Amino acid sequence: MRKAICLLSGGIDSTTTLYVALHDRYDVHALTIDYGQLHAKEVSCAREIAKNLGIVHYVLPISLPWKGSALLDDQIPIPKGRDRSQMAESIPSTYVPVRNTIFLSLAMSWAEAEGADVVFFGANVQDYSGYPDCRPEYLAAFTRMIWLGTKAGREGGKLISIETPLVQLSKKAIIQLGQTLKVPFEKTWSCYQGLEMPCGECDSCRIRAHGFQEAGMEDPLMQHAVASVG
Amino acid sequence: MRKAICLLSGGIDSTTTLYVALHDRYDVHALTIDYGQLHAKEVSCAREIAKNLGIVHYVLPISLPWKGSALLDDQIPIPKGRDRSQMAESIPSTYVPVRNTIFLSLAMSWAEAEGADVVFFGANVQDYSGYPDCRPEYLAAFTRMIWLGTKAGREGGKLISIETPLVQLSKKAIIQLGQTLKVPFEKTWSCYQGLEMPCGECDSCRIRAHGFQEAGMEDPLMQHAVASVG
Repeated sequence: MRKAICLLSGGIDSTTTLYVALHDRYDVHALTIDYGQLHAKEVSCAREIAKNLGIVHYVLPISLPWKGSALLDDQIPIPKGRDRSQMAESIPSTYVPVRNTIFLSLAMSWAEAEGADVVFFGANVQDYSGYPDCRPEYLAAFTRMIWLGTKAGREGGKLISIETPLVQLSKKAIIQLGQTLKVPFEKTWSCYQGLEMPCGECDSCRIRAHGFQEAGMEDPLMQHAVASVG
Repeated sequence: MRKAICLLSGGIDSTTTLYVALHDRYDVHALTIDYGQLHAKEVSCAREIAKNLGIVHYVLPISLPWKGSALLDDQIPIPKGRDRSQMAESIPSTYVPVRNTIFLSLAMSWAEAEGADVVFFGANVQDYSGYPDCRPEYLAAFTRMIWLGTKAGREGGKLISIETPLVQLSKKAIIQLGQTLKVPFEKTWSCYQGLEMPCGECDSCRIRAHGFQEAGMEDPLMQHAVASVG
């Protein structure tokens, strides 16, 4: 079996990506980075998802001492109540400096040490909410840099590729794909707020709600939330 | 003053690079990564060097759960007693998968969060002992990838550059430059073995000894070691 490393944040996109990798019959190891995000709940969701699958899973704590993002600094407001055109206007305050490059570098390190061929990554351009480090041109540049900078690339001539099966899909299509693959959406977490229940107003909650609506489905996480409250 | 982040391992190259950045009148913050290296002594050396300069210094612990390097796994032997031609034959077992990419990504994250213009990095091709992630073509690819993947690059049009003032210098020239800049060589650490004193036999010790010999200088660290033993 070909080995793969999958970055798993605990959200819908990374969890569906993990299920795609397993469906593609890779021997998948999952990697979650606990980087000091205020919505630390996603880390416990990632733990639960990986545990239920019985796959090798590392949660790596990296407490970034600098901030520069609403996801790290509770003094920076998280945008709320925005529609799609407002989200598309600029890179939001929830952007974390160089985050995906740090994540991909760590996944590539594990891949090279483990002899894996592929890193799976749930990047998505349609619903990417303006993040520059989800775009195909960035990912192509990253792959080339890694090929030039690794022993696997220089001596082995091996290109460790980044697979982004969701990169061109809408959230509706991702949810439909996830449903087919039996992704446990009720165990995934999207909200940027560090609360016990989804806020429903941040970009991530709104993109998620819009996706379920378009797919003609109820979000099982929200059903669960309503059940807990009521 | 223009701000810069400097990666500081505690060795001769990164310490001399830090002194170059200070000499160039940057407001320099130093970053050391404690990644589980067996020669953890370099981290305490980095602390001492930064403390004496009175600069902002973060030591970021990242305990990599995977190995794949003689610097992380005491079951993998560290090459000893090799001459320069043997060192040039292949990438050594002391290569750490994707290490410099992880380091540079973290430095770039701090640079973007801090509004710094430059990351200083002590990469060197002449004495690089075969590491692919010290070469100019790798560094150029990294810079381009970061430009594509950051808010600073996409919205601000800002290119955070990597400065490698030592990249084409011999160890002799680096030591001569360091001497001019009053680098405290006795506080730097090069040995790959996790011992209290330099082993004198690993590639890093041998390159260091050869550099001091070529520069016609005594290594103050070895003088100190001899004084301690004798």
